[in-house]
Amino acid sequence: MYQIGVDIGGTNIKIGLVDDALEIVSRISIPFPHLDGAQVAERIAAECHKLLALKGLTEDSLDSVGVIVPGSIDSTGAIVLNAYNLGFHNVPLKELLQSHFKKVPVFLANDADGACLAELGKGAFRGCQTAVLFTLGTGVGGGLIFGGKMFNGGKRQGVELGHMPLVAGGLPCSCGNLGCIEAYCSASALGRAGAKAMAEHPKSLLFAKSNGDPSAIDAKLVVDCAKEGDKTALAVFNSYIDYLGSACIAMIHLIDPEVIAMGGGLCHAGEFLFAPLRENVAKKCFYGDFAKIVPAVMGNDAGIIGAAMLGSNA
Amino acid sequence: MYQIGVDIGGTNIKIGLVDDALEIVSRISIPFPHLDGAQVAERIAAECHKLLALKGLTEDSLDSVGVIVPGSIDSTGAIVLNAYNLGFHNVPLKELLQSHFKKVPVFLANDADGACLAELGKGAFRGCQTAVLFTLGTGVGGGLIFGGKMFNGGKRQGVELGHMPLVAGGLPCSCGNLGCIEAYCSASALGRAGAKAMAEHPKSLLFAKSNGDPSAIDAKLVVDCAKEGDKTALAVFNSYIDYLGSACIAMIHLIDPEVIAMGGGLCHAGEFLFAPLRENVAKKCFYGDFAKIVPAVMGNDAGIIGAAMLGSNA
Repeated sequence: MYQIGVDIGGTNIKIGLVDDALEIVSRISIPFPHLDGAQVAERIAAECHKLLALKGLTEDSLDSVGVIVPGSIDSTGAIVLNAYNLGFHNVPLKELLQSHFKKVPVFLANDADGACLAELGKGAFRGCQTAVLFTLGTGVGGGLIFGGKMFNGGKRQGVELGHMPLVAGGLPCSCGNLGCIEAYCSASALGRAGAKAMAEHPKSLLFAKSNGDPSAIDAKLVVDCAKEGDKTALAVFNSYIDYLGSACIAMIHLIDPEVIAMGGGLCHAGEFLFAPLRENVAKKCFYGDFAKIVPAVMGNDAGIIGAAMLGSNA
Repeated sequence: MYQIGVDIGGTNIKIGLVDDALEIVSRISIPFPHLDGAQVAERIAAECHKLLALKGLTEDSLDSVGVIVPGSIDSTGAIVLNAYNLGFHNVPLKELLQSHFKKVPVFLANDADGACLAELGKGAFRGCQTAVLFTLGTGVGGGLIFGGKMFNGGKRQGVELGHMPLVAGGLPCSCGNLGCIEAYCSASALGRAGAKAMAEHPKSLLFAKSNGDPSAIDAKLVVDCAKEGDKTALAVFNSYIDYLGSACIAMIHLIDPEVIAMGGGLCHAGEFLFAPLRENVAKKCFYGDFAKIVPAVMGNDAGIIGAAMLGSNA
């Protein structure tokens, strides 16, 4: 049997026909049409049926159709509450799509859940019962695996691990609270800390490489300068590692996962990031045997794979 | 059928015969004998068999024997690693007790897990799939319910929720890390903050009631003075509520539990504590519909009940 996974992004919609071994056997990508929910659903359904027809298949060969969107989903898993990049607000996307599929159920989730499921299916969380994904980008997203399944919160309102307090009363977060993990551990937070330190250290490599322009500093520049041994960048990077290590400790002391995976461009820093991060966690951790801390491994296909897995996770 | 629940404390060992409705139908309490593990196990087993005999029962009427201890248990649930009040270190208590029971399995857990299970069985967590217990005392302990069962950590090393970072880099915690929940949210932390504020405010009621002696200040005195409107005590109490609210937010944004229960003597403050706590959480929470925040309800029998439930939780 097969599943269809649909990864809706603000630029493209990627659709894959996925087999039971979680291989994408066929795929289509179309530009995201900036239309209303019903019209987008109709387009997607048409492409799905096209994908099936090209393989000489029908709905009879499908177990499920899964869709992920970059936005928040209601607790029933039916309505896209807000997906700003798509212009979707209170769109009953599950029902809209379901109307085009007579024989198979449609499932809906957000992109962080999809990424988490993809890691479970064929990535860093393979075989795990308990695991945590952090995605370090503009914000901090992620997800949880419990009991070998993707966990969507006890009240099914999602997992907002980037908005757990890490330094209660600390730096302002984009959400309005103070001291969230996101305010300290996002790639953006690393860039901001770099810009601040640069302004205070005009002799630093960070200053030279940014020409003293704070807007020229992002996480990658901080990492690059730290790799070259710039003391200013290293201090910023080490402080970042300390906060990220504390975020890992929060997870380990609470749920003691088997694996913590980190996704996002920042993780291209590789062992330069992961080696000191593990060392930091080891210093703070109650347990000698704690979670493996590793890069997330699923790349661009995470969305399609995760979406295709929604049916079996339900 | 029946279960036996054994609650081992540093002062007494309480043993109860518990029916399937989780009622304690018969009980014995003996002073804790400061002997080695094998001898303690022998005493406990003898008392258990006495309890059965008094009811005209045998092991055939039992499903399980559960034991809780105030200490850490290994990941296999067999060995008491450290229980300082008992003088137990690396004691294979499960096996020692099992040798005295031919027909029923023996289970072992720590007291926080027992308390959490008791709330699940007939307390604040009844019917819950996902719930969190905080016990606010000298430290902060507690436990988690996931999937309607007590969760002992993904690697079965326990739940150390008092040692999640709340103010990373903040106040020193007894564990050696900085800024743990315990360092801000324990009853002791409230007392310490009260003592500090008292010294700075010699005109406060807190100063008067303690005669300026910091060691005379505990959480109860801070609460009592705050209830009387003392500004110094109120400021300390409000700051405590803010930290405890952030600890709740960490749980809600991560696992979105149905219920958060608070145990420990401090909770006798009742709505004076819980009303502003809920208000604080509501201000910071992403969800309008969040966990009920309530006092833990199981009292002295929590240990026996929780121990008796270990078999069915396994």
